[in-house]
Amino acid sequence: MSTEVHKTIGLVPGTAIYTGEKKDTKVTLEVFDYTKAHIEEREIDTIAEVSGLLEDNSVTWLNINGLNDTKKIEEIGKYCKLHPLIIEDIVHTQQRPKVEDYEDYIFVVFKMLYFDEENKFKAEHLSLVVSHGWVISFQEADGDVFDPIRSRLRNDKGRIRSMGADYLFYALMDAVVDNYFVIIETMGEKITTIEDVLFEQQTDMDYVAEIQGLKKEILKIRRAVFPVRELVSKLEKSEHKIISDKTQFYLRDLYDHTIHVSENIEIYRDMILGLMDMYMTTLSNKMNEVMKVLTIIATIFIPLTFLAGIYGMNFTNIPELQNPNGYFIFWGVIVVVCTILIYFFRRKKWL
Amino acid sequence: MSTEVHKTIGLVPGTAIYTGEKKDTKVTLEVFDYTKAHIEEREIDTIAEVSGLLEDNSVTWLNINGLNDTKKIEEIGKYCKLHPLIIEDIVHTQQRPKVEDYEDYIFVVFKMLYFDEENKFKAEHLSLVVSHGWVISFQEADGDVFDPIRSRLRNDKGRIRSMGADYLFYALMDAVVDNYFVIIETMGEKITTIEDVLFEQQTDMDYVAEIQGLKKEILKIRRAVFPVRELVSKLEKSEHKIISDKTQFYLRDLYDHTIHVSENIEIYRDMILGLMDMYMTTLSNKMNEVMKVLTIIATIFIPLTFLAGIYGMNFTNIPELQNPNGYFIFWGVIVVVCTILIYFFRRKKWL
Amino acid sequence: MSTEVHKTIGLVPGTAIYTGEKKDTKVTLEVFDYTKAHIEEREIDTIAEVSGLLEDNSVTWLNINGLNDTKKIEEIGKYCKLHPLIIEDIVHTQQRPKVEDYEDYIFVVFKMLYFDEENKFKAEHLSLVVSHGWVISFQEADGDVFDPIRSRLRNDKGRIRSMGADYLFYALMDAVVDNYFVIIETMGEKITTIEDVLFEQQTDMDYVAEIQGLKKEILKIRRAVFPVRELVSKLEKSEHKIISDKTQFYLRDLYDHTIHVSENIEIYRDMILGLMDMYMTTLSNKMNEVMKVLTIIATIFIPLTFLAGIYGMNFTNIPELQNPNGYFIFWGVIVVVCTILIYFFRRKKWL
Amino acid sequence: MSTEVHKTIGLVPGTAIYTGEKKDTKVTLEVFDYTKAHIEEREIDTIAEVSGLLEDNSVTWLNINGLNDTKKIEEIGKYCKLHPLIIEDIVHTQQRPKVEDYEDYIFVVFKMLYFDEENKFKAEHLSLVVSHGWVISFQEADGDVFDPIRSRLRNDKGRIRSMGADYLFYALMDAVVDNYFVIIETMGEKITTIEDVLFEQQTDMDYVAEIQGLKKEILKIRRAVFPVRELVSKLEKSEHKIISDKTQFYLRDLYDHTIHVSENIEIYRDMILGLMDMYMTTLSNKMNEVMKVLTIIATIFIPLTFLAGIYGMNFTNIPELQNPNGYFIFWGVIVVVCTILIYFFRRKKWL
Amino acid sequence: MSTEVHKTIGLVPGTAIYTGEKKDTKVTLEVFDYTKAHIEEREIDTIAEVSGLLEDNSVTWLNINGLNDTKKIEEIGKYCKLHPLIIEDIVHTQQRPKVEDYEDYIFVVFKMLYFDEENKFKAEHLSLVVSHGWVISFQEADGDVFDPIRSRLRNDKGRIRSMGADYLFYALMDAVVDNYFVIIETMGEKITTIEDVLFEQQTDMDYVAEIQGLKKEILKIRRAVFPVRELVSKLEKSEHKIISDKTQFYLRDLYDHTIHVSENIEIYRDMILGLMDMYMTTLSNKMNEVMKVLTIIATIFIPLTFLAGIYGMNFTNIPELQNPNGYFIFWGVIVVVCTILIYFFRRKKWL
Repeated sequence: MSTEVHKTIGLVPGTAIYTGEKKDTKVTLEVFDYTKAHIEEREIDTIAEVSGLLEDNSVTWLNINGLNDTKKIEEIGKYCKLHPLIIEDIVHTQQRPKVEDYEDYIFVVFKMLYFDEENKFKAEHLSLVVSHGWVISFQEADGDVFDPIRSRLRNDKGRIRSMGADYLFYALMDAVVDNYFVIIETMGEKITTIEDVLFEQQTDMDYVAEIQGLKKEILKIRRAVFPVRELVSKLEKSEHKIISDKTQFYLRDLYDHTIHVSENIEIYRDMILGLMDMYMTTLSNKMNEVMKVLTIIATIFIPLTFLAGIYGMNFTNIPELQNPNGYFIFWGVIVVVCTILIYFFRRKKWL
Repeated sequence: MSTEVHKTIGLVPGTAIYTGEKKDTKVTLEVFDYTKAHIEEREIDTIAEVSGLLEDNSVTWLNINGLNDTKKIEEIGKYCKLHPLIIEDIVHTQQRPKVEDYEDYIFVVFKMLYFDEENKFKAEHLSLVVSHGWVISFQEADGDVFDPIRSRLRNDKGRIRSMGADYLFYALMDAVVDNYFVIIETMGEKITTIEDVLFEQQTDMDYVAEIQGLKKEILKIRRAVFPVRELVSKLEKSEHKIISDKTQFYLRDLYDHTIHVSENIEIYRDMILGLMDMYMTTLSNKMNEVMKVLTIIATIFIPLTFLAGIYGMNFTNIPELQNPNGYFIFWGVIVVVCTILIYFFRRKKWL
Repeated sequence: MSTEVHKTIGLVPGTAIYTGEKKDTKVTLEVFDYTKAHIEEREIDTIAEVSGLLEDNSVTWLNINGLNDTKKIEEIGKYCKLHPLIIEDIVHTQQRPKVEDYEDYIFVVFKMLYFDEENKFKAEHLSLVVSHGWVISFQEADGDVFDPIRSRLRNDKGRIRSMGADYLFYALMDAVVDNYFVIIETMGEKITTIEDVLFEQQTDMDYVAEIQGLKKEILKIRRAVFPVRELVSKLEKSEHKIISDKTQFYLRDLYDHTIHVSENIEIYRDMILGLMDMYMTTLSNKMNEVMKVLTIIATIFIPLTFLAGIYGMNFTNIPELQNPNGYFIFWGVIVVVCTILIYFFRRKKWL
Repeated sequence: MSTEVHKTIGLVPGTAIYTGEKKDTKVTLEVFDYTKAHIEEREIDTIAEVSGLLEDNSVTWLNINGLNDTKKIEEIGKYCKLHPLIIEDIVHTQQRPKVEDYEDYIFVVFKMLYFDEENKFKAEHLSLVVSHGWVISFQEADGDVFDPIRSRLRNDKGRIRSMGADYLFYALMDAVVDNYFVIIETMGEKITTIEDVLFEQQTDMDYVAEIQGLKKEILKIRRAVFPVRELVSKLEKSEHKIISDKTQFYLRDLYDHTIHVSENIEIYRDMILGLMDMYMTTLSNKMNEVMKVLTIIATIFIPLTFLAGIYGMNFTNIPELQNPNGYFIFWGVIVVVCTILIYFFRRKKWL
Repeated sequence: MSTEVHKTIGLVPGTAIYTGEKKDTKVTLEVFDYTKAHIEEREIDTIAEVSGLLEDNSVTWLNINGLNDTKKIEEIGKYCKLHPLIIEDIVHTQQRPKVEDYEDYIFVVFKMLYFDEENKFKAEHLSLVVSHGWVISFQEADGDVFDPIRSRLRNDKGRIRSMGADYLFYALMDAVVDNYFVIIETMGEKITTIEDVLFEQQTDMDYVAEIQGLKKEILKIRRAVFPVRELVSKLEKSEHKIISDKTQFYLRDLYDHTIHVSENIEIYRDMILGLMDMYMTTLSNKMNEVMKVLTIIATIFIPLTFLAGIYGMNFTNIPELQNPNGYFIFWGVIVVVCTILIYFFRRKKWL
């Protein structure tokens, strides 16, 4: 929980402090520069090497992996004339998703979601800046979801190479939102698994822990995804000069997808709440079964034990005891009593 | 659950990929062309055969069954000058209901709901495009709810033949929404059935599964129907040139129906949530009954067994044992104790 | 439940089909025609007999009882130049409450609520059409809530005779809404009755059925009343020429009443949900009591039985058995043990 | 419950019928007439005695105690030219709080809340009419919350004597709203009391009744207070000529107070709902404890009784019985078994 | 609870009454006067000593610690020409957070939150007044969260010295909101602690008390923080001449932080509600375990005791008793029965 919280208390506003967990990542810069006709791809060391690319007529995509080297990030920020508060937001990994319009560029910050190798939910911080002719993406670590876009760029697949930086910007966001569907699909499978286990009347306390875990995960996913919906809606309605009419159209489609994800999240939230009810029901069912066994045993044997106790008494004059067939009659009575009781339990559907 | 999720991750936006389950349906094209005076009805193989019909003064209804042959769908799309994103939505069966206004046509996508032979809830993807003088409907499989409209067209019943394509468009939507009433009626019956069973104190774990199933079904129905309400409301308020004032009026009526369906869905959702409570209550009631039986048996026989134990002791000097009527007095005491206990249970309303 | 649902699936929109249950009612037409100075009251057979009354300067109230004879209703509709969709709504008893403004008249449809002789909740369909100088009311069956208005008309009580058709229209609606108060009062009594029973720790399964019944009733009442609130609010704010400023004022008052009813409904809904909780609490309480009895009995007698068992053993050498006072000492021990246990139960507040 | 409901069904709208419970109050009229310089205070019998006071330059406050004499109220209404519907609202004690703007005056009706001697919640009906130079207050019974205002008037404390009738009007409302804080403070204490009792594991059914009672009280308070919030907000925003800019300012402050009260009510509502959960938890806890005692006793003594039963058998050849130390060995075994079981219960934290 | 409530009932509006708990604080006045070039810092005794500082071109920050000396506060208010209602709000510690625009200054009142030494949640009342060239802050007691700002002022760190009074005003609010993150972090830890304890199946009633305590704390935090969100939003959108465009920008950032805090509060609220469910589940689980132990013991030993009882009977003719190996056969039977039962329990997963 503690990592969810703001870590920059008491600092001057606008101070760039990396608040994430990947402190040792080597920051790398990857550049794509393309027009319909050509494409160039390389890795650079300092921002200065892009010189000329941002201003020319080609579209330039600068992808930065690793946010821990705040000095380098600040350098990039200065080179591209980004506002200091933006730099703070880029490295402040607890920042909630938002979009901000500036005169010359649009700044978007949101989350890339995934389940790590141990199947634990993770949210990675991701920022995009789009301007005329260039897009910069900042992400925490190397493994990203942009490979399909890289390959579309390299192979000139679809319309990406023939459109501007705003379409690239849309395509990057679309790749991330597409990934949200993977996340909710995994959630759906987790829910189904637990549901199946509960129907088989498993009631280990572990399942409570798992259900609680799911609840927290869906809350985190919700917190990461819901603001993205508003964000895309804002972008779609924004009339910023950078977003062309054609791209606006694709943003409408993207908005549709974020709604779809949000609806699924709400449904899963409902279902997870239902899981807890189911757990309680299963528990009560088991208790009922346990009690029935106890009651049946006790109801049959306690009266019989009483009867046996009677004929274990030492009264001087107990006529039945003298009867030579007394013992066998006694067993006969017991058989009759048992039969009646079993009939009674049958009628009550306890057996 | 998994089929609910987007299957086109990583694809170029605008790619037509059929995501439904009916992959082997043969795509068929059915054409109705009518004015007040005449009507023509035939099946065609390629879209080119409608040539001339779309442009003339008659109303043309083109109904396409089967969405799996995406190439054919794309052909139709191109012939009618539909936007590529529309084609994607037509075959993308997980698309949520929506309406989109274009310059020359209106595009609507929503769901046809039904229970299949095994009584499982199914949602079939359905798209409508309306323009001046023609309507195209795209549906996943053959069995549809448009037969009453076909017969009204053939027999010139009602005002359908004398009105334009927009009225046909309304009539098709109306047919689907009318069908929603059948769905919610079935849901109502399912709920009543389970309610009756629970009142008879049946508490098999199976009913929990069934209640959970109902909960999921109502969630799915809700997800299919609620956006239709907004969609119709948008259509009703839209001032698109294709929708005439007269039809606007009928759309208001349709909107009323969608509200009616939505209200019923909300009520059923409440009732299904109540079912789980009832199940728990029934369970607790049964437990109570079991416990009462146990307590009555134990409370009567445990003290009696103790008494019998007393006179089974081997102390050398137990005066009662020497009494020749001791045994009979003992039975007398037992009868008295039982009587008192039974009276006590009666007063507590346990018997 | 099933009667709640639309029964006109597959029909041409605008077809008048009576969907209610009172199929054998004889349709009767009752006419009141009045000015401040005179009043005339009679029953007529066909709509043609009102000829002249609608157009003159007096106010005419035409009350139709029985909706099953759709042909007659259609005739009336035609005579008064009502839109076909209105005729459909008048006889379609599942229509939800709504108001519709037309050029020359206002159409309102809503519900008259009552509990029948078996104390079951019923909603009767009621439509009003108001125009310049006349009001037509359509209701399903004879027994209505308009008697106070008839008597005010006859006796020239209040301001009703001196005001126009719009005031009559208001007065009719007011009579129905006034009746809603009777309904919610009855609901309040039903709730109090069950509450009292539950406090007396009655936990028969029947009460669950009754609580569920109340829940459904309040849902139905809610569905009938809530749209009326909006409807009156619309009327109040409408600037239709038929509603005079003076009547607007009374509509504001009526709106106030509908809010009052709605608030009560919400409160009762909360209370009914609380009843189920109370039922569960009562159940748990009873279980607790049962368990306490069992535990007290078992805790006292099981150890004593053990003790008695000890001295029933047949070891050759049990010194206590030889003691001539052994038996009496044994009883002494038992009394001491019982006293201690009872003290223990007292301290735990179980006795 | 029944007194909550409208009692004027079937009456002519605008009929003044007193619907409260204080039918025998003698109606009294109290007059304050003041300017900055002088103040006059007297009781009058008929409204005619105020003649001249309302029209002059001084501020006149007419306070009417008792609403049951509707004729007198109507007289006052006529004298001050109040609309008949206002008179109806003044005496109709079930009227919900509202404000109504008229040309020459503002009419406000709301509730004075208090707990009576038996600590039962009561709401008293209160109406205010403010015009140029005068305020009339109508209340059900004598005991009111206006004494601080009377004393401020008499002693010329604060700014009340130097300001107009609108400030007096504000001051009267403020006095009532201030009183709401007393009500919610009492509610807070009631909740804390029950909470403390529940933590001490008291689970008498009485507490359920008390919690239900609290729930109903908070619902009633809510219904009385929430409309006041809207009402004050309307007044604050109203631009009626009677309310001066200066007073507007104080109304803003009053609005703040009503929000404060409303927030507290919502919090208390949450807490009362939580009480029921706590009750159930306490109940379950007690049950758990009862079951533990039963299980410990049964688990220790049932096996021992079995052992004793073994050696009570009459087999001819039971070697242990012949052992002269058998009895003492038997006790040794029992001590060992008990020790083991107690260790086992300790480990399970049952002891 | 009681301290939450208004304590100024019946007083003249605008009366300054200190309603907090720190009645013995010595009121101190601390002055910072700075421009980019110089800074002066001193403590003063009376407000008159600031003479000249407020009017000059430097920014003056006057920080007042202690609100109990209302006379001194009133003096300051008069000196700075603050409205009497503001003075009332400054010392009225139950005042809810709000912002009020005046012609020459903006007044903000909100809460500083902290956990005291006993880890109990506390809210301290804090007011800010900002005008051209000066800010006054009023707080209840000495320990505040402004030290980072003092040090930034002294060391000319960040942009604070080069900006106006509005930026200082923002910086003070930012310091308080930053502190809210500490509060919610502590809440998060408290929740995790209880969650861990519950997973270890601890069900002491104490935890219920703790969960209830958390619930109340989160309600209080919510009440303190939520209005701050609106307040900052109002400030951000306000176009008051005192707030410069540059600072507006920082307020947008602050608004973002308040949203972040609010979201966390809502999530924690959900989690705390979930804790109660978990507690109940843990309780039920324990009960289940207890019942299983009881049932296993009873099911094994009750039938065996019956068997032993049989052979303790004194019938004259019980053939088995004569068998010299009878006793050993008896033990054999017992071992067989136990084995079967244990196998049965294993299959039911009770062992």
